[in-house]
Amino acid sequence: MLIASQSNSRIKEIRSLHNRKARERTGLAFIEGIHIVTEAVQSGDVVEMLVTAPELLTSAFAQEFVAAQTQQGLPYLEVTPEVFKSISLKDNPQGIAAVVRQRWESLEHIRLTNELWVALDAVQDPGNLGTILRTCDAVGCTGIMLLGQSTDPYDPTALRASMGAIFSMRLAKATFAAFAGWKQKHQYCVVGTSGAAPVDYQAIAYPRSLVLLMGSERMGLSTEQQAICDAMVKIPMVGRSDSLNLAVSTGVILYEIFNQHRKDAKRNA
Amino acid sequence: MLIASQSNSRIKEIRSLHNRKARERTGLAFIEGIHIVTEAVQSGDVVEMLVTAPELLTSAFAQEFVAAQTQQGLPYLEVTPEVFKSISLKDNPQGIAAVVRQRWESLEHIRLTNELWVALDAVQDPGNLGTILRTCDAVGCTGIMLLGQSTDPYDPTALRASMGAIFSMRLAKATFAAFAGWKQKHQYCVVGTSGAAPVDYQAIAYPRSLVLLMGSERMGLSTEQQAICDAMVKIPMVGRSDSLNLAVSTGVILYEIFNQHRKDAKRNA
Repeated sequence: MLIASQSNSRIKEIRSLHNRKARERTGLAFIEGIHIVTEAVQSGDVVEMLVTAPELLTSAFAQEFVAAQTQQGLPYLEVTPEVFKSISLKDNPQGIAAVVRQRWESLEHIRLTNELWVALDAVQDPGNLGTILRTCDAVGCTGIMLLGQSTDPYDPTALRASMGAIFSMRLAKATFAAFAGWKQKHQYCVVGTSGAAPVDYQAIAYPRSLVLLMGSERMGLSTEQQAICDAMVKIPMVGRSDSLNLAVSTGVILYEIFNQHRKDAKRNA
Repeated sequence: MLIASQSNSRIKEIRSLHNRKARERTGLAFIEGIHIVTEAVQSGDVVEMLVTAPELLTSAFAQEFVAAQTQQGLPYLEVTPEVFKSISLKDNPQGIAAVVRQRWESLEHIRLTNELWVALDAVQDPGNLGTILRTCDAVGCTGIMLLGQSTDPYDPTALRASMGAIFSMRLAKATFAAFAGWKQKHQYCVVGTSGAAPVDYQAIAYPRSLVLLMGSERMGLSTEQQAICDAMVKIPMVGRSDSLNLAVSTGVILYEIFNQHRKDAKRNA
């Protein structure tokens, strides 16, 4: 049955997922576009329901994908182009979207065995968070820990910037105190960054099991946060400004870690 | 005289600078906030006029700055908080803004002498462009060349992301054909990037006089564009996705170039 009413209760529920409160209440999120929907499906059991507008769905690849998934029993809603546009955040909707279940892990159950994680303290900008997820995927990070009051990785802007990487990264949320306790208990190595740190980010050898701790866009890491780090490193800068965009600085350090590890692997091969 | 009308003709002109067409017609741009306004003033002769709302301007530093500048003859407008809010794009305006003259150089007059420039082909996202300007400043780039149909570095989003770095970078705009001719004529080294390039970005030695050519967010570099490059390099990736955010990939390569050059300098010191 084709849903033709924008005030259909299920359509209203889906539309509400644009707002963080509804996402937090339901534990769900809304994604759209063929790329991210296929990423979500391939990542395993997170898609609750496909939403398609058959009239808009012109890509043969997307049509076959939808047919295959629904045949395998994935629940789906078919809607008119008007209804689809009422839930879409895109200028030219492709006619495919999905409701996904958010996946959060508890810090207590996370153990590092040759794993690289990024912990972000109070990251504010969803575009930065999504971009960092995308970079994490590129360098083989295991996941991201969001500390304190942070923006939502399931925010539409974060999802767009992550280019689907949110479905290949593990996600955890914790207070800074819980993070500090977890690090202490398991004696994990945490490296933090600050423009005032004494050590160049290229001057240390990054261990295989590691959490890279990044401060927020405006505040960086507090003294208390720096105190729990095994090393504090700085990215050198020569210009007028004393900081980089958070997604860029995270990317620069992640690539240093990744480059060190791939050179080690080559050496040991 | 305090301007109290939002429909004052000068206020309307200033407000029009939020739009690209008006910026292109006038060669002007609108900036706001104490940080970027001081950057603009310090960078030399680009500020045409300060705009202040004395009632909103609570920072003593900002008050002294305005007093000093206007005493030295910088033209200024004083407006009511309501008028200021009508031209501001911020949620909590600080009461200081300026109209600046855009500075564009012609490619023909640019010569590289131990200079690093970034050329961006058809960059679309103003946030990416501003973020790249900020990174360029941090690694001591000389300037940015915008090739083809690109977004505007004087767009409010680009200005915000650049954190004032736009005033320390030189700027040029050109067609790709003009850029290729300029490179050919002066035999400058151009390094491009592509996910399909054969060479790891860490495997080459970057010369001191160099243009780093980056493709657009969606298209990367065309075959024709790759053909003029002296080297094509790739950033390795191990995840599901095959590309990074443009500002991140530009940052990763710029830091490789910067790191090579600072190590050379140390070695030669």
